[in-house]
Amino acid sequence: MDSVELLDTTLRDGEQAPGVSLSPEEKAEIARTLDAAAVPYIEAGSACTGEGERRTISRVTDLGLDATITSFARGVQSDVDLALDCGVDGVNLVVPASDRHIEGKVGTTRGDVLERTVELVDYAKDHGLWVEVIGEDGSRAELDYLVELLGSALEAGADRVCYADTVGHAGPDRVHEAVSRLSRLGPTSTHTHDDLGLGMANALASVAAGADLVHATVNGVGERAGNVALEEVAIALDHCYGIRTVDTVQLYELAGVVSRYTGVPLPPNKAVVGENAFAHESGIHTDGTLKDERMYEPYPPERVGRERRLVLGKHTGRAGARAALEEHDVEVSDEDLAEIVPRVKELADRGKRVTDADLLAIAEDVRGRERDRRVELLDLTAASGGDTPTASVRLRVDDEERVASGLGSGPVDAAVSAVREALGSAADAQLDSYHVDAITGGTDAVVTVEVVMSRADRTVTVARSDADITRASVVAMVDALDRLLVRGQRPAPADD
Amino acid sequence: MDSVELLDTTLRDGEQAPGVSLSPEEKAEIARTLDAAAVPYIEAGSACTGEGERRTISRVTDLGLDATITSFARGVQSDVDLALDCGVDGVNLVVPASDRHIEGKVGTTRGDVLERTVELVDYAKDHGLWVEVIGEDGSRAELDYLVELLGSALEAGADRVCYADTVGHAGPDRVHEAVSRLSRLGPTSTHTHDDLGLGMANALASVAAGADLVHATVNGVGERAGNVALEEVAIALDHCYGIRTVDTVQLYELAGVVSRYTGVPLPPNKAVVGENAFAHESGIHTDGTLKDERMYEPYPPERVGRERRLVLGKHTGRAGARAALEEHDVEVSDEDLAEIVPRVKELADRGKRVTDADLLAIAEDVRGRERDRRVELLDLTAASGGDTPTASVRLRVDDEERVASGLGSGPVDAAVSAVREALGSAADAQLDSYHVDAITGGTDAVVTVEVVMSRADRTVTVARSDADITRASVVAMVDALDRLLVRGQRPAPADD
Repeated sequence: MDSVELLDTTLRDGEQAPGVSLSPEEKAEIARTLDAAAVPYIEAGSACTGEGERRTISRVTDLGLDATITSFARGVQSDVDLALDCGVDGVNLVVPASDRHIEGKVGTTRGDVLERTVELVDYAKDHGLWVEVIGEDGSRAELDYLVELLGSALEAGADRVCYADTVGHAGPDRVHEAVSRLSRLGPTSTHTHDDLGLGMANALASVAAGADLVHATVNGVGERAGNVALEEVAIALDHCYGIRTVDTVQLYELAGVVSRYTGVPLPPNKAVVGENAFAHESGIHTDGTLKDERMYEPYPPERVGRERRLVLGKHTGRAGARAALEEHDVEVSDEDLAEIVPRVKELADRGKRVTDADLLAIAEDVRGRERDRRVELLDLTAASGGDTPTASVRLRVDDEERVASGLGSGPVDAAVSAVREALGSAADAQLDSYHVDAITGGTDAVVTVEVVMSRADRTVTVARSDADITRASVVAMVDALDRLLVRGQRPAPADD
Repeated sequence: MDSVELLDTTLRDGEQAPGVSLSPEEKAEIARTLDAAAVPYIEAGSACTGEGERRTISRVTDLGLDATITSFARGVQSDVDLALDCGVDGVNLVVPASDRHIEGKVGTTRGDVLERTVELVDYAKDHGLWVEVIGEDGSRAELDYLVELLGSALEAGADRVCYADTVGHAGPDRVHEAVSRLSRLGPTSTHTHDDLGLGMANALASVAAGADLVHATVNGVGERAGNVALEEVAIALDHCYGIRTVDTVQLYELAGVVSRYTGVPLPPNKAVVGENAFAHESGIHTDGTLKDERMYEPYPPERVGRERRLVLGKHTGRAGARAALEEHDVEVSDEDLAEIVPRVKELADRGKRVTDADLLAIAEDVRGRERDRRVELLDLTAASGGDTPTASVRLRVDDEERVASGLGSGPVDAAVSAVREALGSAADAQLDSYHVDAITGGTDAVVTVEVVMSRADRTVTVARSDADITRASVVAMVDALDRLLVRGQRPAPADD
């Protein structure tokens, strides 16, 4: 276990995920990002899928990347020819290995598969390709036959053979046994799926058994429960075994690009790249983290291109609340803090997400201070459905009432335009992020909107929930703007 | 490795996830669902967190469940007393084990921790509690000290000790070594986190090393990257080792309840419980699955309370398209199919999700048949933002124009009411599901709405994307209604 390489199959196995479809531009951009992260092998697609797919693969091979670009090919010569037409460097030649696939799907025999595999390896090598032979459904194949089949492929000149747990069926013991036998014959890779949650366990078991190439997809996207996640393999090998595979600092950006293009959102609790992977809420955890950054982190977030986050909630303790208030230049006494923390917990006990706007409101209330609200929403109307979504708002800005209208691509966008119009030059704040949680309840479900806005060096997060998405969005945004326009929430001056 | 039990810590470690906060009702409902799935241990919370949390734990202990109900407790007597006040059956007593935690966080010594642990175990046992001692940050502790500390706890009468990879730092080799030493001393559990994607690998390594209780959370919710997922541990132990832990048929329902209450969505590619875990799109995969259900599945979906799904996309082949059309009573010739499949691929190549409504439209076009559209949206206006969201629609229903208005909790809900009003008795269709993908781009982002509607024994899925969420929702719904009202898309009659 000295050196391990990664083969990314986001553009092939990842794209086979139900509902995922990448345009040629998107595939090219993902390939560029993978190459920038020094991923050595990129499986760009499956040339036999169709004309559109072949144009896309050609587009990737035309980029002149450092990575070895390959195409998936079934065990027939025409697939290898189609891959050659796309200008790839290599093929991932998949041949059936289990009797279920040999007899049940393809309708042939073990002997025939072996013979055709040897012929095809020969053909592909003759045409200058790097060749990896994958025994499909290898984890359900009779092990002696799998060893014979892939051993013959290596003898015929294949550069590498792959142990494929195609249906995500195997446990690590079985994988270790199989890969140990294969890796004694020649370079061996491993292709694991996560149907039992064992994608990583099986990838590591393979490496321990001598595999030196791991197939993976960014964010683990792929058929069914997906493949093992590239970012997890990279960071686990680095952290646990000191094995460097790719440039880990690029992993977070890579995850974002793939999530955006595939439309598969990143779960907040996803290892390495999820929103919460380096966030701390619990009281003792936050306290510990403020004392020593490594207290509750296995490795620093910067290693994967990220930053640490402290979050408020029912487990928030004094240290966490004080740190969050200080970020907004609010200094509080120990007595105030003793009142503030239970109220944060109380809000969270009711099942609410606690943002820093909530914390600031509680702090003001505890300190008996009426905040000078600078912007307030008095009225809102948005009309949508037709060709020209439009909205009007009535705001109080300091002592003045202002009315404005706006157009947009939808009701929320129109209302936001109207707010900006009404505020005029006061609206020099940035909307850094606008997020709506997925809606699943029904058309009358309560929608939660979270906006992050910044102005000069201050940033504020506000979340609002409402059955009316327009109102939730505008109220959140107006509250955020108000917070940003109220100058530094300093301790009260002497004459207060 | 004969018998393994599970301890669910969704209500404690899961709730410590940033942004997650469960109300007392929600915690009670999750506890009931866990108990119904025969989960033997439920950690209901952390009694020291506050008054609200204690009321919630008491509510769970009052349910009279079969499971052993426990509370998390730090290594101080007052925490044990607070847990006793809540009527729990046991405590998960957490004491610092690594020098980083002993010295850096708590500011004490190894000797002192050991002494106080023994005293506390004695105290808790005297009060009739089941006691598990968790060595916090155990995976970064000096192993000899960890063994001494937890061995002393067992000698003092603890029912069980727990190896905790608190920060998700360890690899399976290290875990195997540590748990092997601990399990020789007495009953040992394991608590793993997923920061390196190794939650499952480490849980299995623990079981292989003699652990017979695994801590887990439903859907893997928890601090940072979360804990190992209960449903994955249960199904992997069952499938790979024949070890039964819980009633797996309940796992999907459990996942839904926890996702709804925590607000943490289920990623589509999540093992066991994700939307796509048993969905098949790719051409060869669908073809194989139609021939033999087990071709591309490690275990039948029914085992976890689910069903198989076939999905359309760029990898759809003839067998998959034919099967999908047959579900809508549309029979096509081989010639038609040869035209239909490339058009499905073409739509997907442009990065579109392909629903069955899209497939039906393509099939009609290929067969040169103008569909008798029964419902068409002519005009839509929705007003929102104020107290009374309202909408009006103009529809053509057969040859008649109908206008109606409706009220709702937001613009979409109002528009849906208006559509139902306009359709009158024709609208006897059910809206089975209304889903909007999470919106992250900005207020002008294109929103994708997917509706599933059914009428009698037919179900249709339609997805529409638009920057205006109201329009996307109504167009999707009207298209779905129209599909459902068009009677059986039969082959054309003879005089056609």
